Amino acid sequence: MTHRNDMAPADRLHLCEVGPRDGLQNESVLVPLETKVAFIDALTATGLTEIEVGSFVRPDVIPQLADTAEVFSRIRRSEEVTYSALVPNRRGLEGALACSADKVSIFTAASESFAGHNIRATIEESIERFIPVVEGAHQAGLPVRGYVSCVVACPYEGRITPSAVADVCRRLLAIGVDELDLGETLGVASPDEIGALLETVGEIESPDQIVLHLHDTKGLALSCAERAWDLGVRRFDGSCRGLGGCPFAPGAAGNVSTESLVSFFEGLGRPSGVSLEKLHEASRLLDLLF
Amino acid sequence: MTHRNDMAPADRLHLCEVGPRDGLQNESVLVPLETKVAFIDALTATGLTEIEVGSFVRPDVIPQLADTAEVFSRIRRSEEVTYSALVPNRRGLEGALACSADKVSIFTAASESFAGHNIRATIEESIERFIPVVEGAHQAGLPVRGYVSCVVACPYEGRITPSAVADVCRRLLAIGVDELDLGETLGVASPDEIGALLETVGEIESPDQIVLHLHDTKGLALSCAERAWDLGVRRFDGSCRGLGGCPFAPGAAGNVSTESLVSFFEGLGRPSGVSLEKLHEASRLLDLLF
Repeated sequence: MTHRNDMAPADRLHLCEVGPRDGLQNESVLVPLETKVAFIDALTATGLTEIEVGSFVRPDVIPQLADTAEVFSRIRRSEEVTYSALVPNRRGLEGALACSADKVSIFTAASESFAGHNIRATIEESIERFIPVVEGAHQAGLPVRGYVSCVVACPYEGRITPSAVADVCRRLLAIGVDELDLGETLGVASPDEIGALLETVGEIESPDQIVLHLHDTKGLALSCAERAWDLGVRRFDGSCRGLGGCPFAPGAAGNVSTESLVSFFEGLGRPSGVSLEKLHEASRLLDLLF
Repeated sequence: MTHRNDMAPADRLHLCEVGPRDGLQNESVLVPLETKVAFIDALTATGLTEIEVGSFVRPDVIPQLADTAEVFSRIRRSEEVTYSALVPNRRGLEGALACSADKVSIFTAASESFAGHNIRATIEESIERFIPVVEGAHQAGLPVRGYVSCVVACPYEGRITPSAVADVCRRLLAIGVDELDLGETLGVASPDEIGALLETVGEIESPDQIVLHLHDTKGLALSCAERAWDLGVRRFDGSCRGLGGCPFAPGAAGNVSTESLVSFFEGLGRPSGVSLEKLHEASRLLDLLF
């Protein structure tokens, strides 16, 4: 069974909204259930075609996302939108399946130290843990996204080589992961570093199948996105209003905002199909919280 | 004597780098003198034509900028670049003149509460205080930039009306200020709000003479910049690597990064003449600090 992203035209920009999961996960203010639901419903109205709704992790580990099942049950879903959830293990997958998530994501790193701190496993252990998750997801007909964090730099190890990233990507593809999501967790990459990374990873996966997940710590996220586009990448994660940072990456700023990506690519003549005005309306729902 | 920005072609994008002053002023880590000098020298090499070097405020009020005179004496200046300094009063102006600053800036707000908290004066008092500063600057042949902060919203008063902003602008122009710099201090404006602001202020000053100073709290800075461009604004402040935030504006993120502005306008077919690669080199000099 294949779940590759072959439905989308290869030359079309595709944005995935990660604000409700990756964004909120890294915000310290707890967002009420009703607000999350209203936020996701507003995101659905923007024209986005993919939204990561939440995460089925242990509630004591990430209290912000403890109500993901409840969020899934209350949002008004559109047929046009893929609603995904992060699942750390087989039990998390069961939670996602019970909520009829359209897609699940697993999360590892290209840095052993980061994996150790963040998911308390070696990279190898994390991938072994994912085997039954991918199998179970595929049995249920769901595609699996595989996040690889620290693809350019790690807060503990410094620079990470493209070949180390490619190695993890190869192992994820080998266990059946359908989509690689390369996370530039620290937001410190130069466009040249993104270029070197994509050239190496591009040897094992077509760039138009790769998702790039950028942070904007040093103001270079858009320049990196442009370089990636030039190298064939068409899929980018964005976070409405730039929600989120990374608690394990001191000094790292938030995710690149979906708004910036929309404006930037529009300027390049690459419309995303996402309404900036409606994104702003969604963002406004969080005004009293942040 | 006139110091209007009539040297630059009206349709040309002009970026002013405010990282060394407005950026660093709002970073809590103290940057060593040598690093500041290296940073500004690197910025000079980027193709930027205007850099705000520092501020002649009381050292006990803003310790980060206490060494501005020393910075001015050590940087390698280019004939192509305008090096400016913020001066709060006549005494500050003397400091700037002693350093041969090319331009000076004064700072007030469109919100009485913000002016009270930030510069400990009413708006009217601040403008009276600036009269001898503007006179002295003009006697020395220097143009004066007038910052108006909180042009869309204030952390204490909420939304600020465009007419309140226009009123302050009118008073600044009346005392001889050469260039208005509108600061969207909180970074919460929508493109429509920026549009409404510029239409009102545009009645008293030509948009191509106005500088727009954006923060990126909600990810909309670039969308606002685009709207401003469409309305005739050609001058934007940016901060290398998005340095700075605002200590008086809880939750406000940093200045929009110069890198983002360069990439964004390049995408729109409006080159800034600034090298992204060299901006990144300048930014790297601060890597160990932030």
